[in-house]
Amino acid sequence: MIDRDACRRLDDADALTDVRDRFTLPAGVIYLDGNSLGALPNHVPDRLQTVVTEEWGRDLIRSWNLHQWIDLPQRVGDRIGGLIGASQGTVVACDSTTVNLFKVVSAALRLTDRKVVLSDSGNFPTDLYAMAGIGELRVVEPDAVIDSIDTDVGVVALTHVGYATGRMHDMAAVTSAAHAAGALVVWDLAHSVGAMEVEVGAADFAVGCGYKYLNGGPGAPAFLYIREDHQAAFRNPINGWFGHAAPFDFDLEFTPADGIARALVGTPHVLSLVALDAALDVFDGVDLRAVRARSVSLTETFIDLVEAADLPLRLVSPHTRSERGSQVCLAHPDGYAIVQALIERGVIGDFRAPDIVRFGFAPLYVRHVDVYDAVEILTDVILSGSYRDDRFQRRSSVT
Amino acid sequence: MIDRDACRRLDDADALTDVRDRFTLPAGVIYLDGNSLGALPNHVPDRLQTVVTEEWGRDLIRSWNLHQWIDLPQRVGDRIGGLIGASQGTVVACDSTTVNLFKVVSAALRLTDRKVVLSDSGNFPTDLYAMAGIGELRVVEPDAVIDSIDTDVGVVALTHVGYATGRMHDMAAVTSAAHAAGALVVWDLAHSVGAMEVEVGAADFAVGCGYKYLNGGPGAPAFLYIREDHQAAFRNPINGWFGHAAPFDFDLEFTPADGIARALVGTPHVLSLVALDAALDVFDGVDLRAVRARSVSLTETFIDLVEAADLPLRLVSPHTRSERGSQVCLAHPDGYAIVQALIERGVIGDFRAPDIVRFGFAPLYVRHVDVYDAVEILTDVILSGSYRDDRFQRRSSVT
Repeated sequence: MIDRDACRRLDDADALTDVRDRFTLPAGVIYLDGNSLGALPNHVPDRLQTVVTEEWGRDLIRSWNLHQWIDLPQRVGDRIGGLIGASQGTVVACDSTTVNLFKVVSAALRLTDRKVVLSDSGNFPTDLYAMAGIGELRVVEPDAVIDSIDTDVGVVALTHVGYATGRMHDMAAVTSAAHAAGALVVWDLAHSVGAMEVEVGAADFAVGCGYKYLNGGPGAPAFLYIREDHQAAFRNPINGWFGHAAPFDFDLEFTPADGIARALVGTPHVLSLVALDAALDVFDGVDLRAVRARSVSLTETFIDLVEAADLPLRLVSPHTRSERGSQVCLAHPDGYAIVQALIERGVIGDFRAPDIVRFGFAPLYVRHVDVYDAVEILTDVILSGSYRDDRFQRRSSVT
Repeated sequence: MIDRDACRRLDDADALTDVRDRFTLPAGVIYLDGNSLGALPNHVPDRLQTVVTEEWGRDLIRSWNLHQWIDLPQRVGDRIGGLIGASQGTVVACDSTTVNLFKVVSAALRLTDRKVVLSDSGNFPTDLYAMAGIGELRVVEPDAVIDSIDTDVGVVALTHVGYATGRMHDMAAVTSAAHAAGALVVWDLAHSVGAMEVEVGAADFAVGCGYKYLNGGPGAPAFLYIREDHQAAFRNPINGWFGHAAPFDFDLEFTPADGIARALVGTPHVLSLVALDAALDVFDGVDLRAVRARSVSLTETFIDLVEAADLPLRLVSPHTRSERGSQVCLAHPDGYAIVQALIERGVIGDFRAPDIVRFGFAPLYVRHVDVYDAVEILTDVILSGSYRDDRFQRRSSVT
């Protein structure tokens, strides 16, 4: 079994090791929750301060043009597009993931005469909530998706990597099966973008989150992708002035902008968008294949060490690397208390109801030595039974 | 006619004079565009820096509970509620004004069996765009609204103060007429909240903007009001996890939260929300009736001085103070160039197509001496014809 020195050697040999220095990480913490809230990139605070004091405070309204706030959604979108294999002019950063999903699934359904939206029970619930309000939602088990695409299904809408299991869909295979059956495909890339190379490929639409592996800060704006040939027919269910062809003409009638801008609605949240824009700098010069390789190595090392420790935990995530995202989920009846006990020991993962202890391995800043240390502490917490202490027990439903 | 010394005396005697010191304003600028982007409150930069470096950077995911990010939308909403006469638990801060309008107008239409949404041609176009996608939108002249509320009208949705004219509706009168005719009322308070005492009163729903007179920063989250007795029946057209009764139970089925939280959708934009929260501190101890009194005095002084200067400008805003918000709009065929020439001279107003020169008087930081100086410069720009210079002419549709 791998030891701590071997972990250190793996880290030292890794091309991405220096990338960790682009983040500000608190001392004494092993942060395995970057899939919930990404860590702080070093230069975000300065960039935000400049925007606030110089752009907002000094240049005031003129900054919309002077500092190009006006096309921030497109510029940040294009940068994210580079991480998902999307061409320029097909991605915007705006609103929340849920609002963006509402937009694209509504628009997708209008492009077909079928009624059913097919999703799976591994999807993040908010996606299901948004879609249940739009079409006739059919929810199947993740493994049953491809076989369930019948001629009633107009839109297949899935999250690439499941939030609760780390299970990863084969995007190309599902997209291809859906197209073969005459359905459109919407991917939610929340748990994959920034943690691996993602290729939207032939997918029709996609959305994703700015605050997980993109490190855009709490509640960062989300993004939205429309394949170029769908843009002319894309009809946003929420029309607003930033989606208008000429917002500053103040026409009373809505005329959608050409291209991706028609997916925008209201005034962009500039401060949050600027933080996300600055955060994306950490990807400069980073090879996403190396990111995925490191991610696989981290999750595999973690699984190997946990299995070797023979703890009373059930692996919920796929054992097969090609089916696993950048997280490992373990089930335990006292999962909530275990997460709390780990946090007190400096290992931050998170709990997902009903019994899942979830560890995310953000490959830009998590090291193999962190994995090693985390498993040592996890082993101690479980074998010592320290998690049974009263102060770790669940009191509220907000975790 | 009032002279500069008299203006200074008015400022010195005003209880709100010290409130100006709560803002960071650039030297050499007379800022008459706070109705487009409010000025920077002094302590926003520090507050934002703390949130970024300590809450996000150091405490990471724990901040959702530790620093109460989790209920920021409600806490900021309650503070805004205090500015519009709304009771606690009836306002949330979230999303953009347009998205919020989409939510409340969709929800309002579901509460009636009528089909028509009535609005007016003085409404901000984005409001009309959003509503045209929902119901059968009927747009009439502002003066014709009350007489147009027939039995087909389910929802009357208006902006309290018109963006292009400063014309102010009588909220209580319109609300009362709508209710008498069996219609519900939605108010957009974008151009009034923070500039005067606003009373939602019997209104059913309201929305408003965070970045104008609330000074929340560029693209600050907007807000949304639901009268308490409508909350149980309120059905959000965009369901998301922050509107769920138990977001962290991760149920696959949507159960709306009790109360105002059901109007939320996705993860709150924390950085933008925190800036708005900090910005609201400038209202501490401020009497909104004094704010309105100062606003009226500023706009009236401006109109008097412009009329005395006998310039070739047409007053577009109402002359009657009770019908006017906190802005004054003047029409001129070369309005665009005049605005550019004024900006070069340090007087920042803005242009609204086709020919409107718009001056906003944010009563918390604009002084009577600013009004006096602005009119002197406006007079000089127009009488000298300096605005005719080529560099001030319109080149693009984005201003």
